[in-house]
Amino acid sequence: MSQSKGRVLLAYSGGLDTSCILKWLIEENYEVYAFMADVGQEEDFKAAEEKALKVGAKKFFLEDLRREFVEELIYPAIQANCIYENVYLLGTSLARPVIARGMIAVADREGCDFVSHGCTGKGNDQVRFELAFYGLKPDIKVIAPWRIPVFYDRFPGRQALLDYAESTGIPVAQTKSKPWSTDENLYHISYEAGILEDPNTTPPADMWKLTTAPEDAPTEPERIVIEFKAGLPTKLTTAIDSKSYTDAVEVFNVLNALGRKHGIGRIDIVENRFIGVKSRGCYETPGATILRAAHVDLEGLTLDRNVRALRDQFLTIELSKILYNGHFFTPEREFITSAIPASQRTVNGQVRLKLYKGGVVIEGRSSDEGLYDEQESSMDELGGFEPTDTSGFIQIESIRIKKWAQANIRKGQAGVAPKDVYGSRV
Amino acid sequence: MSQSKGRVLLAYSGGLDTSCILKWLIEENYEVYAFMADVGQEEDFKAAEEKALKVGAKKFFLEDLRREFVEELIYPAIQANCIYENVYLLGTSLARPVIARGMIAVADREGCDFVSHGCTGKGNDQVRFELAFYGLKPDIKVIAPWRIPVFYDRFPGRQALLDYAESTGIPVAQTKSKPWSTDENLYHISYEAGILEDPNTTPPADMWKLTTAPEDAPTEPERIVIEFKAGLPTKLTTAIDSKSYTDAVEVFNVLNALGRKHGIGRIDIVENRFIGVKSRGCYETPGATILRAAHVDLEGLTLDRNVRALRDQFLTIELSKILYNGHFFTPEREFITSAIPASQRTVNGQVRLKLYKGGVVIEGRSSDEGLYDEQESSMDELGGFEPTDTSGFIQIESIRIKKWAQANIRKGQAGVAPKDVYGSRV
Amino acid sequence: MSQSKGRVLLAYSGGLDTSCILKWLIEENYEVYAFMADVGQEEDFKAAEEKALKVGAKKFFLEDLRREFVEELIYPAIQANCIYENVYLLGTSLARPVIARGMIAVADREGCDFVSHGCTGKGNDQVRFELAFYGLKPDIKVIAPWRIPVFYDRFPGRQALLDYAESTGIPVAQTKSKPWSTDENLYHISYEAGILEDPNTTPPADMWKLTTAPEDAPTEPERIVIEFKAGLPTKLTTAIDSKSYTDAVEVFNVLNALGRKHGIGRIDIVENRFIGVKSRGCYETPGATILRAAHVDLEGLTLDRNVRALRDQFLTIELSKILYNGHFFTPEREFITSAIPASQRTVNGQVRLKLYKGGVVIEGRSSDEGLYDEQESSMDELGGFEPTDTSGFIQIESIRIKKWAQANIRKGQAGVAPKDVYGSRV
Amino acid sequence: MSQSKGRVLLAYSGGLDTSCILKWLIEENYEVYAFMADVGQEEDFKAAEEKALKVGAKKFFLEDLRREFVEELIYPAIQANCIYENVYLLGTSLARPVIARGMIAVADREGCDFVSHGCTGKGNDQVRFELAFYGLKPDIKVIAPWRIPVFYDRFPGRQALLDYAESTGIPVAQTKSKPWSTDENLYHISYEAGILEDPNTTPPADMWKLTTAPEDAPTEPERIVIEFKAGLPTKLTTAIDSKSYTDAVEVFNVLNALGRKHGIGRIDIVENRFIGVKSRGCYETPGATILRAAHVDLEGLTLDRNVRALRDQFLTIELSKILYNGHFFTPEREFITSAIPASQRTVNGQVRLKLYKGGVVIEGRSSDEGLYDEQESSMDELGGFEPTDTSGFIQIESIRIKKWAQANIRKGQAGVAPKDVYGSRV
Repeated sequence: MSQSKGRVLLAYSGGLDTSCILKWLIEENYEVYAFMADVGQEEDFKAAEEKALKVGAKKFFLEDLRREFVEELIYPAIQANCIYENVYLLGTSLARPVIARGMIAVADREGCDFVSHGCTGKGNDQVRFELAFYGLKPDIKVIAPWRIPVFYDRFPGRQALLDYAESTGIPVAQTKSKPWSTDENLYHISYEAGILEDPNTTPPADMWKLTTAPEDAPTEPERIVIEFKAGLPTKLTTAIDSKSYTDAVEVFNVLNALGRKHGIGRIDIVENRFIGVKSRGCYETPGATILRAAHVDLEGLTLDRNVRALRDQFLTIELSKILYNGHFFTPEREFITSAIPASQRTVNGQVRLKLYKGGVVIEGRSSDEGLYDEQESSMDELGGFEPTDTSGFIQIESIRIKKWAQANIRKGQAGVAPKDVYGSRV
Repeated sequence: MSQSKGRVLLAYSGGLDTSCILKWLIEENYEVYAFMADVGQEEDFKAAEEKALKVGAKKFFLEDLRREFVEELIYPAIQANCIYENVYLLGTSLARPVIARGMIAVADREGCDFVSHGCTGKGNDQVRFELAFYGLKPDIKVIAPWRIPVFYDRFPGRQALLDYAESTGIPVAQTKSKPWSTDENLYHISYEAGILEDPNTTPPADMWKLTTAPEDAPTEPERIVIEFKAGLPTKLTTAIDSKSYTDAVEVFNVLNALGRKHGIGRIDIVENRFIGVKSRGCYETPGATILRAAHVDLEGLTLDRNVRALRDQFLTIELSKILYNGHFFTPEREFITSAIPASQRTVNGQVRLKLYKGGVVIEGRSSDEGLYDEQESSMDELGGFEPTDTSGFIQIESIRIKKWAQANIRKGQAGVAPKDVYGSRV
Repeated sequence: MSQSKGRVLLAYSGGLDTSCILKWLIEENYEVYAFMADVGQEEDFKAAEEKALKVGAKKFFLEDLRREFVEELIYPAIQANCIYENVYLLGTSLARPVIARGMIAVADREGCDFVSHGCTGKGNDQVRFELAFYGLKPDIKVIAPWRIPVFYDRFPGRQALLDYAESTGIPVAQTKSKPWSTDENLYHISYEAGILEDPNTTPPADMWKLTTAPEDAPTEPERIVIEFKAGLPTKLTTAIDSKSYTDAVEVFNVLNALGRKHGIGRIDIVENRFIGVKSRGCYETPGATILRAAHVDLEGLTLDRNVRALRDQFLTIELSKILYNGHFFTPEREFITSAIPASQRTVNGQVRLKLYKGGVVIEGRSSDEGLYDEQESSMDELGGFEPTDTSGFIQIESIRIKKWAQANIRKGQAGVAPKDVYGSRV
Repeated sequence: MSQSKGRVLLAYSGGLDTSCILKWLIEENYEVYAFMADVGQEEDFKAAEEKALKVGAKKFFLEDLRREFVEELIYPAIQANCIYENVYLLGTSLARPVIARGMIAVADREGCDFVSHGCTGKGNDQVRFELAFYGLKPDIKVIAPWRIPVFYDRFPGRQALLDYAESTGIPVAQTKSKPWSTDENLYHISYEAGILEDPNTTPPADMWKLTTAPEDAPTEPERIVIEFKAGLPTKLTTAIDSKSYTDAVEVFNVLNALGRKHGIGRIDIVENRFIGVKSRGCYETPGATILRAAHVDLEGLTLDRNVRALRDQFLTIELSKILYNGHFFTPEREFITSAIPASQRTVNGQVRLKLYKGGVVIEGRSSDEGLYDEQESSMDELGGFEPTDTSGFIQIESIRIKKWAQANIRKGQAGVAPKDVYGSRV
């Protein structure tokens, strides 16, 4: 046997692809260590470890990253109302930075020259993982077999992998493969590829895994209260049993259970991948869907209008793009997130919600911040300011508008009531 | 009797406030014409006309603005995905420009020197109406009694208005006043003030008028198909009876009926008024909630990623603010909306939806635009581009990130796995 | 004499207007304290104090705010490259927050119920001062005589003030009034009003006060080096005499002297005031013009591309608007400025400049940050990445563009070479 | 000789690189047509044609694209105030789309399967050209020799090219090569690479080609007037001889001559290339520097404040990025530029300028648009609106600021005069 090309830390899933990659890397004369991250996915980690070692991994590392996933990635994303293309709550994107960070820590500690993964050459995850690797350890070398011709030419499809597994003694699960791919963590599950590639195909009812169908959800609504401090959830109370939860991970897990029960957080979209390809994905994000609705609502009561507008337009949108595109360990992410705390200083209070058949309904909210003033906002009574002040406000606001209107009239470009506005288009 | 101060066109609602204003303006020696706009609200226009004339209006004008409301305001707002503060679909804001335009057209034709309205001195509508008046006819004079001390000091509350009505022979409806205010048009209804001023009070079940409660909605989902051309809805098909609708107003009306039936489009928020006061509002927007969901979805399939991102960040957000703040007849609205058509050129296709107990579920979408390419996006097959291209893409994308990471490491500001990112804040 | 209406702290300038206001406030039965801020303007503070006390002020307070003006307002604005409407460096806007803060501190300490100022009712400064007062002490009461009818009706012009001064014994300077107004501090001087109100009038040569005319500036260029740490100037070296300056205020003063000598920093613009009125202003900002050019240049070498782009689009533009409009003591300013430090972490190095007849010429720059890599950027040698990587990058970048082009061609909306782009408009 | 691989249209410059590429492509069995675009660069096109044919090109095409360059690219960029990273006027970026469009038109007409160019593998131009090719003709095939290992390994440096030229009979100019690269057109010239790669090296005086050094420019200022219609320059008048120019190209050429004479438009920057590498470049852009200053100034007088602010933040910044990154033939460019006309409708008038030793000084401006109103803006007289209106405006503006300040005080987070703002950073 020729000399080792070096030590590789492989992101291992226990599945067919990464098992074959593990074996192939060994054949290619690498020493392979296997790495798994527990980010809350449903997985038999023990069995995966045994399989990795059986296939030939020299060592196996399992890192429990659930708490840092919740506290360092999920909650700040909630604070910032992150969402991609109006709809997607970024569940896979949020897990990648913690996994990559955990993996680089092990690679560094264990003296690995290479890291490797089983992502395809067309998706977002390869980009997210590799940019994170380089942002943490710029001299790391990455082996991405699905982008190496000698690998992907050898394994043109699932059958080739199965044949390879059989011939090299890799154990293969007997369960039939689903006609789609998934990625799961404690925040969400994604479904894509296979039959979902036709964007007009309705996902089969038995695909959805993390939530009950709204049609099958309880016919009785359920009520909860979520409390926030500085935009972070600090307490969850369930009305039916008056139980309270305060630990960050526990709060999130209970919200997930509630969302699952009431059919909350399913979406089905066509999104734009970072590489510019459109892709159809379905997602279930039960707990975060509830949490985001509550947070957005509380901001109405507690966040200054102008801060909210600037945050929405810049921080939320830019951070969501940064997360989606895998630019977490970058100077722009550092820049953008540095503004989160100042945007959330006043977001303190509690929101009352009703969960019912897929819907999250706000039933009320309260706060001691004092930015809302019943008397001031009341239409029925004076208070806070003089009505005549508003006359002055409107007069001043109209100065430049009148000038523009006068110019329009002078030019004949506007009559009294121009019909040509904003409608007769396209 | 002294000489008339001039002719006033009063925005008349038929209610107590504007009837008293009508009478008061006459007492103040104005000649008053009454104006009503039909923007789809539920109203007895005939009775209102009779009342106006009885109270003393010299003339009464009713303008049917429903079609221009749908075609010139509502549909372009849908094209642009307009939404205020993440939640509010701008139903009142959208009606104001057509009403103001209709009113100025009458004022101009009928030789009115003044326009008047019954808006309070604390809300958005006074601003929206008056800025629209000035943007159309900069020399118009506005009488806003609720901001004139001699008026509001005389009528400090509802009882004073009732007394005045009684003493001056203004007919008063015997129905008990609701403990909230509403504004209704064919797009939505709003509820605010009164008992809703406590943001923690859950709206009573009997408040909601335009939609069935989700709990009372049918237990069977209903399916529809909406077709768009250039981002505008051009056809609605209901699955159960295979009926199709293509007229702009009819499509909208049928969507409203479907939304009403299935409990779609209720929201309850605390929003920020233009004058800087926070205010609690509840809204029902059944049809537009369905339509917006469909439009957003179709954009996933048919709109270029970069156009969508720029449109979301600039056009959608800015136009929503412009509409909310009553800046419709302004140069910035003209500027911003001029970009809508170029953003919607490819938004052609159809969306299949399921309506169920308050939820709008996307079940599939199709288009002939061809921006989505199954083979290219497929994780399972090669096609469209070489996997090795992605390696180059990632290498180039990582150039500046590696430089930054190297600098971090040199400075000791980043270790292998900085824990200090993005979480341990506040 | 009737009872005092309370104690007023008046922003006093020593000039005719505020002296008359001082006297008038006393006549109106207020107890008046006079306040002056030293923000670097050329002024005989001693004479002003004597005059204030002679006119009737009970006390006089002079606050030296020069250092906090430089360190807390000017330098952060330089860090953020603040500029209003592409041209104006915000000299007056930057001084207002420190003056207002100094004034409120005195008002609070001395038990004043009111603050007062001599700003006109049409400008920005009234807004900047008053919003700052309210942002620091929301219950303070403001007396703005130029917006009080009983005052401005009594003093319709300069002659009325002169008559009042004569009749009440207010000393009046014998110097002839200039046909324009000025506001001066150590950052800049502004000129507006009077003959400048015609935007086509070229300012007379003898108006400019802080800088030599470029035509009269030295015929020999002068060279300097400015060093920055975290985007803040920390050292200035003048080449001719090899002198170095490191104190924040001294660096700024020396830059001002250099700019003055070489005719740097004059502008003449029509700007948009916060109240929506267009206004013509001329400004001299010698030192900051040099400093900003150097800072912008150093960012080219040391700031990440994406951070720079986001900072330019959001932070720079928004903060400039916030400063101009007097929104300094607001939550949005707190939010926006919280992101400055993360944007400037790498802005370390030095810039070499040449000053010559109004021009600031960059002659070179250096830094130890290491984000610039000669080998990597070299067109003449390989290094940093493989040329083939760029092929992959371009292929991936072209995916969505090709799809769009194919759709265009299919629709006949684009031929091989559409001439209809981007030119034949309007 | 084996069968031809197909017909290539080569972007030919007449220089060593593209002559060697031409020869090499023929050796590689392609049929080669040579293409040159006249975009105003100083060039002996006749000699280039002869050389191309001598080296072996089957055909030679010269396209005069000067007018469309000025009218379709340069003037719209001036209308939009385009600038990259605060400093660079995008001269090379603007030429690429017209050259690519001209080239694809010829390729299409002449039945070429391939296009080829001599851009290096590290710069922006390869990206700009190729994305433009794909945006116009998505099935075109591109040959980029400097990214093909077999080519660049064979020609590792200039000497290898010279040897190849000698051995294959390619004529070589006897002029000594400059220690930098240039790109020239009628808008600008760029200098990069070679000795300029050290960002601290001051460019030698004899490098600059399009402008006189400010030190050598006339000691007498010169005055001109530029007239704009809808933001486009329509007339240039030179004061000294009262000559007028109205043809688009002639106006630009005369401005170039004036800028050259007075030393206007030199810059020296470190910029961020699209591929993420920092790069040092020097540029001369004489005419456009004058034109942009005039256009920006006129907008002060004639453009609404809010349109200007939105245009600056979105249109100007986004279009500048789009141009720099070579995204001209894309949907996002189409989207963004569709908003230019509505932003420039009122930009009509004339600007008077003084040119002196590198400086462009605004001396006045006028317009019939009427958005500027002397009386309204006058500090010295009433008019336009009541001073008391401003009181109302300030009161309304302060509502949310007071609420925030009250909350701060209640929490002890702000005292009367918080020193902790905006200064004590980093």
